[in-house]
Amino acid sequence: MEHVNSGRHISSQFDEELKEVRNAVLSMGGVVEKQLTDAIQAIKTSDHELADRVLSNDTRVNALEMDIDNACTQLIAKRQPTARDLRQIIATFKTIADLERIGDEVKRIAAVAKESFSSEQQHLLAALENLGQLVLNMLRTVLNAFARMDAEEALEVHRTDQGIDRQYEGMLRQLMTYMMEDPRSIPKIMDVVFSARSLERIGDRCQNIAEYVIYNVHGKDVRHTSDEDMEQTVRKSR
Amino acid sequence: MEHVNSGRHISSQFDEELKEVRNAVLSMGGVVEKQLTDAIQAIKTSDHELADRVLSNDTRVNALEMDIDNACTQLIAKRQPTARDLRQIIATFKTIADLERIGDEVKRIAAVAKESFSSEQQHLLAALENLGQLVLNMLRTVLNAFARMDAEEALEVHRTDQGIDRQYEGMLRQLMTYMMEDPRSIPKIMDVVFSARSLERIGDRCQNIAEYVIYNVHGKDVRHTSDEDMEQTVRKSR
Repeated sequence: MEHVNSGRHISSQFDEELKEVRNAVLSMGGVVEKQLTDAIQAIKTSDHELADRVLSNDTRVNALEMDIDNACTQLIAKRQPTARDLRQIIATFKTIADLERIGDEVKRIAAVAKESFSSEQQHLLAALENLGQLVLNMLRTVLNAFARMDAEEALEVHRTDQGIDRQYEGMLRQLMTYMMEDPRSIPKIMDVVFSARSLERIGDRCQNIAEYVIYNVHGKDVRHTSDEDMEQTVRKSR
Repeated sequence: MEHVNSGRHISSQFDEELKEVRNAVLSMGGVVEKQLTDAIQAIKTSDHELADRVLSNDTRVNALEMDIDNACTQLIAKRQPTARDLRQIIATFKTIADLERIGDEVKRIAAVAKESFSSEQQHLLAALENLGQLVLNMLRTVLNAFARMDAEEALEVHRTDQGIDRQYEGMLRQLMTYMMEDPRSIPKIMDVVFSARSLERIGDRCQNIAEYVIYNVHGKDVRHTSDEDMEQTVRKSR
């Protein structure tokens, strides 16, 4: 590992602490993934109790973010990291901020699962569930990429967001058609629209996390760069 | 100042660097504020050119975020800050991330200013402009609070978000009524809905920045705490 070879580590204790922080991020990611899984399940089965559980569990996500945030601050103050270690800590700050905001979006989705939909409106929920599964896969994959600090996998995740955006746009057009055909159902459909948008935003946040993984591995900030530049950053160091 | 009295500063050069970073954040804030002002103006006057300028200027916001981000990382690596200095740097990382995302929301609003609205639809834009002015004031105030590291002002900003949320909810209800009355205008109204939602999200992000100011000044993470706890944190140290 780079930071061992460079000889600037005075303590394997620090390696241990960095590992702990990374594990804590993965635990937090696991909780958020479970929250999204449950929210989608609650929509699929109109399970109001499960939706309530998702809503109340968000405090756990928030608490985890604050804990890890605090651990990272302590680690900087105590260990004064540089280079790759510092990058890992900064990538961690950003990753948990995005995970927390994913948690907020999941809450918005769960709130819709608590609404009652008529049998004719059930197909709206089916479309939402499909999009939800895509986004859930994206979240799982980016958490895997983070766990293994796999920049190539992160790059793949980054690309899948385009597919999610397309599916979201298509769904939006369809939902607007339904609204025009049955104006009385507009408030209900709007709830579905906002949930779909929350899912789309979760996709964007997974993309952010993918960028932090690439930053962590390659030391290059790839936000706002072209897909080609990003690919070059990842590929050239193979 | 705390960090001078504590005697742990070996260098006034570091103070200078911290000040530079803070000034850079304020410049970035100024650019974002101008972007929002222009987007609202573009909506008000149906100025497509101005809207285009807002859209293309977002790259400046992104570049500023990356520059400041990099400066903060360098500062940690070089100066190994602790306590309040470290808090300032971490609050900076978070503030610029929110400013950058505010920039993204502004872009979404500017895109709507490029649409054509009929004379009957102009009142929709007027409501959007009103909400925009409220949010713009909130952004200005939180940037002032950041400039002066004024936790009391940050607390005030935090409270105004409730008013923005209420105004947004009211506007949303009204927009849904319009959609029901005139289903053909649904796609157009949906653009206004999404812009209103972008404004509401900007309010949330201003609230985040207010929380970082309080964290910076009082060393307490007040995210996810009650309004009362937040007030106590700010007031007790007067």
